[in-house]
Amino acid sequence: MIDLRSDTVTKPTDAMRQAMASAEVGDDVYGEDPTIRRLEQLAAEMTGKEAALFVTSGTQGNLVAIAAQVKPGEEVIAEAESHIFYYEAAGVATVAGAQIRQVVGTRGVLQPQAVGRAVRPNDIHQPRTALVSIENTHNRAGGTVTPENVLREIQTVAHAAGAKVHMDGARLFNAAVATNTSAKDIADAVDTVQFCLSKGLGAPVGSIVAGSQSFIDDARQWRKRLGGGLRQAGILAAAGILALTQMVDRLAEDHANAQTLALLLANMTGISVDLATVQTNIVIADVAGTGRPVDEFVLRLREEGVLASAFGAAAVRFVTHKDVSKDDVLRAADIVARVAAGR
Amino acid sequence: MIDLRSDTVTKPTDAMRQAMASAEVGDDVYGEDPTIRRLEQLAAEMTGKEAALFVTSGTQGNLVAIAAQVKPGEEVIAEAESHIFYYEAAGVATVAGAQIRQVVGTRGVLQPQAVGRAVRPNDIHQPRTALVSIENTHNRAGGTVTPENVLREIQTVAHAAGAKVHMDGARLFNAAVATNTSAKDIADAVDTVQFCLSKGLGAPVGSIVAGSQSFIDDARQWRKRLGGGLRQAGILAAAGILALTQMVDRLAEDHANAQTLALLLANMTGISVDLATVQTNIVIADVAGTGRPVDEFVLRLREEGVLASAFGAAAVRFVTHKDVSKDDVLRAADIVARVAAGR
Amino acid sequence: MIDLRSDTVTKPTDAMRQAMASAEVGDDVYGEDPTIRRLEQLAAEMTGKEAALFVTSGTQGNLVAIAAQVKPGEEVIAEAESHIFYYEAAGVATVAGAQIRQVVGTRGVLQPQAVGRAVRPNDIHQPRTALVSIENTHNRAGGTVTPENVLREIQTVAHAAGAKVHMDGARLFNAAVATNTSAKDIADAVDTVQFCLSKGLGAPVGSIVAGSQSFIDDARQWRKRLGGGLRQAGILAAAGILALTQMVDRLAEDHANAQTLALLLANMTGISVDLATVQTNIVIADVAGTGRPVDEFVLRLREEGVLASAFGAAAVRFVTHKDVSKDDVLRAADIVARVAAGR
Amino acid sequence: MIDLRSDTVTKPTDAMRQAMASAEVGDDVYGEDPTIRRLEQLAAEMTGKEAALFVTSGTQGNLVAIAAQVKPGEEVIAEAESHIFYYEAAGVATVAGAQIRQVVGTRGVLQPQAVGRAVRPNDIHQPRTALVSIENTHNRAGGTVTPENVLREIQTVAHAAGAKVHMDGARLFNAAVATNTSAKDIADAVDTVQFCLSKGLGAPVGSIVAGSQSFIDDARQWRKRLGGGLRQAGILAAAGILALTQMVDRLAEDHANAQTLALLLANMTGISVDLATVQTNIVIADVAGTGRPVDEFVLRLREEGVLASAFGAAAVRFVTHKDVSKDDVLRAADIVARVAAGR
Repeated sequence: MIDLRSDTVTKPTDAMRQAMASAEVGDDVYGEDPTIRRLEQLAAEMTGKEAALFVTSGTQGNLVAIAAQVKPGEEVIAEAESHIFYYEAAGVATVAGAQIRQVVGTRGVLQPQAVGRAVRPNDIHQPRTALVSIENTHNRAGGTVTPENVLREIQTVAHAAGAKVHMDGARLFNAAVATNTSAKDIADAVDTVQFCLSKGLGAPVGSIVAGSQSFIDDARQWRKRLGGGLRQAGILAAAGILALTQMVDRLAEDHANAQTLALLLANMTGISVDLATVQTNIVIADVAGTGRPVDEFVLRLREEGVLASAFGAAAVRFVTHKDVSKDDVLRAADIVARVAAGR
Repeated sequence: MIDLRSDTVTKPTDAMRQAMASAEVGDDVYGEDPTIRRLEQLAAEMTGKEAALFVTSGTQGNLVAIAAQVKPGEEVIAEAESHIFYYEAAGVATVAGAQIRQVVGTRGVLQPQAVGRAVRPNDIHQPRTALVSIENTHNRAGGTVTPENVLREIQTVAHAAGAKVHMDGARLFNAAVATNTSAKDIADAVDTVQFCLSKGLGAPVGSIVAGSQSFIDDARQWRKRLGGGLRQAGILAAAGILALTQMVDRLAEDHANAQTLALLLANMTGISVDLATVQTNIVIADVAGTGRPVDEFVLRLREEGVLASAFGAAAVRFVTHKDVSKDDVLRAADIVARVAAGR
Repeated sequence: MIDLRSDTVTKPTDAMRQAMASAEVGDDVYGEDPTIRRLEQLAAEMTGKEAALFVTSGTQGNLVAIAAQVKPGEEVIAEAESHIFYYEAAGVATVAGAQIRQVVGTRGVLQPQAVGRAVRPNDIHQPRTALVSIENTHNRAGGTVTPENVLREIQTVAHAAGAKVHMDGARLFNAAVATNTSAKDIADAVDTVQFCLSKGLGAPVGSIVAGSQSFIDDARQWRKRLGGGLRQAGILAAAGILALTQMVDRLAEDHANAQTLALLLANMTGISVDLATVQTNIVIADVAGTGRPVDEFVLRLREEGVLASAFGAAAVRFVTHKDVSKDDVLRAADIVARVAAGR
Repeated sequence: MIDLRSDTVTKPTDAMRQAMASAEVGDDVYGEDPTIRRLEQLAAEMTGKEAALFVTSGTQGNLVAIAAQVKPGEEVIAEAESHIFYYEAAGVATVAGAQIRQVVGTRGVLQPQAVGRAVRPNDIHQPRTALVSIENTHNRAGGTVTPENVLREIQTVAHAAGAKVHMDGARLFNAAVATNTSAKDIADAVDTVQFCLSKGLGAPVGSIVAGSQSFIDDARQWRKRLGGGLRQAGILAAAGILALTQMVDRLAEDHANAQTLALLLANMTGISVDLATVQTNIVIADVAGTGRPVDEFVLRLREEGVLASAFGAAAVRFVTHKDVSKDDVLRAADIVARVAAGR
C-alpha cells in the first residue's frame, strides 16, 4: 500500500524509537522532565519566541493558544476553510466561547484588506475582534504558503485593531522549506504559533505552541484544564527533538515528490490540478472529468494499492511524506492513470 | 426629526399604554401571570405551534431557541450576514458552545442546495450539523423574504440530515404581510420560530419563541438561566397582545412607504438601490456615487432632520415604521436629495 | 388568599401603573431612553457607584456581574446555599465557564477566615479565585444580614488575593433598613452590587447592577449577549424609580410583620423557629414537630387561605411584603396554628 | 532523594521502554493503531465494559466522560474535596458548562443518603442533577476506598433520579487490590469509569475511560475536540498494556509500605495520622504538633533527602509507589522523626 492519505500516517524512525526507549524522564506537571524542557527550549529558539509548550496535537495547540488569547463573546477571524473552523469539532466555540468569522481567502491565503473589512467596529451588538488565525501552510487549499509580506500586513491590520495574530503552522516547516526561509523568520510575523512534530517531521505524537512567556504560562494552564498535562512526557519529547533536528531539511523531498505527482496527474485525461496550489506536499486533483464519483475513485485506488482521501464532491487529495519514496509516487501516478482511464 | 434608523425606535401606542396601566398581573415565574398566559396562547395560535414563550428580545429568543436545540460542539448553519452571526455578540458560541457556519445566500435567502453542501458528514473531526437558522425577513440584505417553497426545501434538507430548522423571524409579520400569507403558514415550514412584538408592531419590549411543548419547556429553563424570567411581566404582555391584534395589518403602509422612498432614492444621482431587495420596510442605498463618505453623509442627514444608519463602507440604511408617515418619507427623500447633491 | 410564598409576588402600586402609562421612552439599546437613564443615575447615586445598569432580573444581574469579572476556568467563592449556586440554573458555569466554590457560612453569613482558607494558591491544577459573591440578605438562611464589618473583612481578604467582591443584594434595601444604614454604606464594602426593584420594592420587573464605569460597560455588553438589552424599557424604569423613591422606608413594616409572625409561630407546639435568623422579612419555620409532612402542611395552609413555600424536608417559608398587612399576618398565624394542631 | 510526593513520579520500567521502542503503530485518529486497539480492548475487558478509550491523563478522562454525559446547565454531584472539583482547573464548568455540587463525604466516601438529599427537584430555578461522580480511591481523603455496597447504593439513588454514575478511578487498581476484588467488580457498580495507566501502574503517560459503546463514541469526539486524539499513540499504549498486565499485583507492596510508614509516623511526637484513612498508598500526617509550619517542615525534609507534599495548612502527604522500596520508606521515616524532633 502506498499511503498518500495524509502525512499524519508517518511512523517514527528507528532513531526516534531508540531515543524514546532511552529518554531521560521526570514528572512534567511538576516541570521536572528534562527531555521536555530541552524540546521546549529548542522549539522556542527555532521559532524565535520567548517560550514554548509541548501539546498532544495540533488541535490542542490551536485550542490552548486561542483560549489563552480570547475571551468568551469575542471573535476570531480565520480563512473560511481553515482547519480550526473545519476540522476541530467546534472547539473554539465550546471551550473558548468565541465565534469564528469565516473570511474567504485566495487559494487559502487571507488577504490583509479582507481581514481589515472583517474587523468589528466598537458596537455593543458585535463581538470584539480579538484574534486573527492564519493557517500556513493551508491544508484544504492544497498546502499553500502565506507569503511573509502578507503575514506582516495582516499583523499590522490586526495590531491596529487591538487583535493578536496566531498561526496554525501545523505544517510550518513545510512553509519554511518551500520558501527557503526559517521557521523563525515566519514566526516573527505572528504573535503565537503552533506547529506539529508529527506529520511531515515524523514524531509519533505531539505539537508545539510558542509565544511570549506570559502567553505560555496561560496556555500551560489551559493545557492542564484540557487534560493535556502529561507526566513522563519526555518519552515523546525525545522523538520530537529528533523531528526538529534531523527531519526538517528532508521535507524538500516531499515537496519534489508532490510536484512530480501533480505534473503527472495534471496531464491525465479527466483530471485537473491547480498547479499554482502545489507549493508543498499536498496535491488536490479534481477527478470530475473522469466521470467517476469520488468515493468510487478512491475505492478503486485502494484496490490497486494507493490510499488517498476523498476531498469534497469532486476531488481526491494526495499527501507526500517521508514514508513514500519517489518510486512510490511514480507507481501511484501509474495507478491513478489506470483508474482514471477506467482500466 | 424623522427617525429612519430602525423600526426598533417605535413607541407604544396610547392603547398600549392604557393596557399596560390596567393589566392584570401575577408572578410569571410561578406561571401565574394571566396576561402573559393570554399572550403566549395567542402567539402559539398565530404561529400554529403547540406552545409559545415570552422573552425580552429577539436576541434572547434566538439564543434560548438555539441553546435548547443544539449541544456544545455542534454547528448551526446560517446565512453569512445573518443577525445571529452578526449582531448577537457571539452568544451562540458563548452560551450554547456551538459554532455558526456562515453560508452566503442570495439577497439574504439561503439556498437549499448550499445548505445541503454545508451539512457535515459523520466525521469525528467535524461538528455535527444540528440546526439551520433562517432569518426572515433578512435585515442586512435589506428586508428580503425567504419564499415559502424555499423554506420547505431547506426543511427537507435539514430533516434529512437530522437537523432542525429555526426561524429568526424578528420581522416575521413583515414577511407575512409582504407575501400576503399568514405567520402560521410561514411558521409551518420551520420547527421553531422567534418573532418580535417590538419593532414594526410597536410594543415597547418583548419577543416570542414558539414551537413544540417540549421545546418550550427547555427554552423556558434557558430563559430563566439567562435571567429572562420576569415577575409581573403582564405589564409588557398587555402591550404585546395589542401588537398582535391591532398592529399587524398596518405593516403594509410601512412597506408602501419603503417602496416610495426606494424609488425616489434610486432616481437620485450618485445613489443606487437594489430595488429587488426592497420587499418590506428596509431600504439600503449605496451612496458611493455621491463622493461623500458614508459617515459624513449620515451626519449631514442628521443636521437636516433625518436619522439613518451607516451601513458598511458605502451604504445608508433607512427603515420605515409606524412612527413615520408617508409625508415624513417624502420630506426625508427631499433631504437625501439635497445632501446627495452636496447642497 | 394571603400570599406569603415570596415577596416576588408583589404587584405594582397605582402610582407605578400611572408612571408606566405616561413614561417618556426611547430606544435604550441606542442609549436614548430618558427614563432608563434617570433610573440608572439614581441607582448609581443610591449605591455610591460610578455607574448602574438596568437588567431584567436578579439572576441576570448576578450573571452579567460575574461574567464581566471572571474568566472561564476561574472560581467564585459563595456561601454554600447562596442563590447563585442554588437557584440560578447553573448559569455561572454555563455562561461564564466558572466554578462556584461552596463555603458554609454561619446563618448564611460567610466568615472572612473561611473565605481566606478557600482562596486558591497559585497552582496550575487549581482555578484562580477571581471573585467572592456575598448574598445580603441571605434568602435560604432566612433573610439574614451580613454585618458591615464582616463585609469589609471579606473585601480585605479578597483584594489581598487579587479577587473582587460582588454582592447579590436582591434584598439589599431590606438589609439597609434592618440595620438602619444606607444601601450606599453597604455597597461601599463591595466592588459590585446587584439589587432588585421588584420583590419588596414592588416594581413589576427589573433589577440593577452597579459598579465602576468600566465594569458597567462590560456588563452592558454581557446583558446584550443574553438578550437583556430592551428597547423602550423606560416603561419598566418608571416603576423602578418609584420603587427606589417611595418604597424603601416601608420595608420596616414587612420586617415588623415578620417579627410578629415569627414570635407567634415560635410559640406553637410542634413548630420551631430560629429567631436569630429573623432579621428582615423572611420566617423559616421547622414544622417537623407537628408530625405532618411539609408538603401536606403547605397544602393544608393553602386550603385554609395561606400560601407559603415548602422549604427542604422539614420547613415552611413565609415572606412578608407590601401586599400583606399586619392583619393578614395575624390571620395567617391563626391558620398556621390550626393546621399545626391538626384541626 | 526518596520521592514520596506522589505516585505520578513513577518512571517507566525497562520492559515498558523496550515495548515502546518496538511498538507496532498506526494512525489512531483513523483507528489504525493496532497497539492502541489492543490496549482499549484489554481495558474494556478488565473493567467489564463494552468499550474503552485511551486518553492522555486522568483529568482528560474525567472531562470527556462528564462532557459526554451532561448538558450545559446541569449539575454533577461530587465529594467536596474531590479531584474533579479541586484539581482540574474548573474544566467541568468551562468545557461542559455544568456545575459541581460539593457534598461532604465521610473520609472521602460519599454517603448515599447525602447524595439523595443533594439531588435536585424538578424546578426551573435549579440545574438538573445529571451525574454523580465518585472518586475511588479518594486522593485528598488519604487514599480511602468507597466500599462496593456504598457504590451500589449510590447507583440506585442516582438511577432513580435519572442520573448516571461516573467513577474517577485514577487509582482504581489500588482500590481493587486493597479490597481484594477486581476492577471489573468495582466498575460494575458505576456507568462509566476512568483509571490511570500512569501513577502506581508506572506507564509514562495515559489513562482509560470505559463504558458503553455509545458513551465511548461520544467521549471519542470530545477527546478529539480537546486535542487528545493522537497519531501513532501505540508507543504509549505499549507501556499501558504492560501497566495492566504486569504492574497491578505489586500495588500491594505500596500499600504495605504506606501502612509501615503510617504506623511509624503515628508514633512520633507532634505528628498525628488518622490510621483509618490509610487504606492504600497515601499517608497524610498532621504535623501541627511539632510546632513547625508545614512549608518549613517540607523544606527540611527535602534538605534531608525526602520529598513530600504540603497538604493544606497543617499536614504533609506521603505517597508510596514502585520507585520507593521498603528500605526507602524506613529511611524516610527516620528523617521525618529527625525533622519533627527539630534535630
